[in-house]
Amino acid sequence: MIGAIEAGGTKFVCAVTEDGEKILDKVMIATTTPAETLQKVVAFFDCFSIHAIGIGSFGPIDVNKDSPHYGYITSTPKVGWDYFNFIGSIREKYKVHVAWTTDVNASAYGEYHKGAARDVSSCLYLTVGTGIGGGAIINGNILEGFSHPEMGHILVRKNKQDLFKGICPYHEDCLEGLASGPAIEARYGVTATTLYNRKDVWELIADYLAQAIFTYTLALRVEKVIIGGGVMNHTNLYIMIRQKFKQLMNDYISTPNLEEYIVAPALNDEQALIGCFLLAQDLLNKN
Amino acid sequence: MIGAIEAGGTKFVCAVTEDGEKILDKVMIATTTPAETLQKVVAFFDCFSIHAIGIGSFGPIDVNKDSPHYGYITSTPKVGWDYFNFIGSIREKYKVHVAWTTDVNASAYGEYHKGAARDVSSCLYLTVGTGIGGGAIINGNILEGFSHPEMGHILVRKNKQDLFKGICPYHEDCLEGLASGPAIEARYGVTATTLYNRKDVWELIADYLAQAIFTYTLALRVEKVIIGGGVMNHTNLYIMIRQKFKQLMNDYISTPNLEEYIVAPALNDEQALIGCFLLAQDLLNKN
Repeated sequence: MIGAIEAGGTKFVCAVTEDGEKILDKVMIATTTPAETLQKVVAFFDCFSIHAIGIGSFGPIDVNKDSPHYGYITSTPKVGWDYFNFIGSIREKYKVHVAWTTDVNASAYGEYHKGAARDVSSCLYLTVGTGIGGGAIINGNILEGFSHPEMGHILVRKNKQDLFKGICPYHEDCLEGLASGPAIEARYGVTATTLYNRKDVWELIADYLAQAIFTYTLALRVEKVIIGGGVMNHTNLYIMIRQKFKQLMNDYISTPNLEEYIVAPALNDEQALIGCFLLAQDLLNKN
Repeated sequence: MIGAIEAGGTKFVCAVTEDGEKILDKVMIATTTPAETLQKVVAFFDCFSIHAIGIGSFGPIDVNKDSPHYGYITSTPKVGWDYFNFIGSIREKYKVHVAWTTDVNASAYGEYHKGAARDVSSCLYLTVGTGIGGGAIINGNILEGFSHPEMGHILVRKNKQDLFKGICPYHEDCLEGLASGPAIEARYGVTATTLYNRKDVWELIADYLAQAIFTYTLALRVEKVIIGGGVMNHTNLYIMIRQKFKQLMNDYISTPNLEEYIVAPALNDEQALIGCFLLAQDLLNKN
């Protein structure tokens, strides 16, 4: 059996599979301290005979195999998790292969192989929720260089009607600072769901997301951009983003048909788990 | 012997090598009509016994091997070159393997293997001259998805002191519209060289380039950013860009030491030719 850990800042989801795709059992665990959270993770996996585990973690994380901190969550502001040795804690309990990447990379990998991007050779997975993050798969490989991307913090141009300062502690009004769920709630002083019928709100968010996808498109030229995360539950956003993307691009370069280029995920919140299964399976096949 | 064609919008440079690195002979040809230009290219290569040719071309070009227009320059505004079958024209004369990519991808490949990035596993090559373009190498592979990147046209935030509208015919004030050589000359009404001592000018250009490198860094996480092109001859620009990049990043993510991260090319205007040699050699080795 293969295990998966989708390690988020607010909750962990652990799951097991036999065939790398179908989830046999699953548990959700609130993210508290590392010790308490990992204890519950282990309690779950102890019920199965696991041969490999894939982890898709909140970041920043160290993905450099030559680094002494490979397998660690690094400089997170999340109390207790700063330089937490994630792979080490798992290996202490289970002598199995552990695949390790970011949550968004795992989601991108899942959608690439089994979801919205299964028929193309490259994709970007963007999540717009509590934070904004992105991961890309190019010809089957996760895009990583010196470290993993941090696409949520790119600069966008402030919309002239938007007087909100932004909430990113590092960059104030970067993409995440302006368009994440908490940014929307801080801007209007209410929860995002109560804004459902405020067209001006979603036009603004679509403007920022379209700018970002314009930039990713020029830099990466992937064949598909998949956008998930809680903010995207306002499904009209996809249509608005496509319209604004088209205006920005102004026919400068060709892209796939926009209805097929900028799309929703196909794997119903299971893309990260499935990506983790596949990455763990890749490791097993290699070893 | 191996041939290389660096095909630019104003000039072509053709060269030959035996060892894939040392240029044995080289010619420069003004870019006029395709027929006239190619005639001179052929006149040069006819003097040698060539086994493979690498082409690094101005764009946009079709790099999709499954496309009917693979090997073509596509929708360029350059008169006569629109949908020019570049590989076809070369193959008509020489029955050899032809490697095909953009000029900036070829430069990135050259610097990656033999130049400033020879000791790292990923790099971005950015040229800032008549236009702005970028190419990236990740773990030895040219970054390409649906097509090649067009990094020069990403959005940057307008500096509040800058009243210039921008000159990009597609996006007006994208990076290329604000910071390319022609943008500098249009903004100040004089040639860029006469502005050498105008610190305000280079601070402004450094602002835009630092913003762009911030974005590429978050999206790609390469280990090295190499900036070439005529505008970079003002060597203080590297120092200014590093300073502004550091302010923008605000310690959000780690990068290599900035003196080693944002650097000048190491191959003296030969990076594209050397990249073309290497790509042609790769093809020979594979076949």
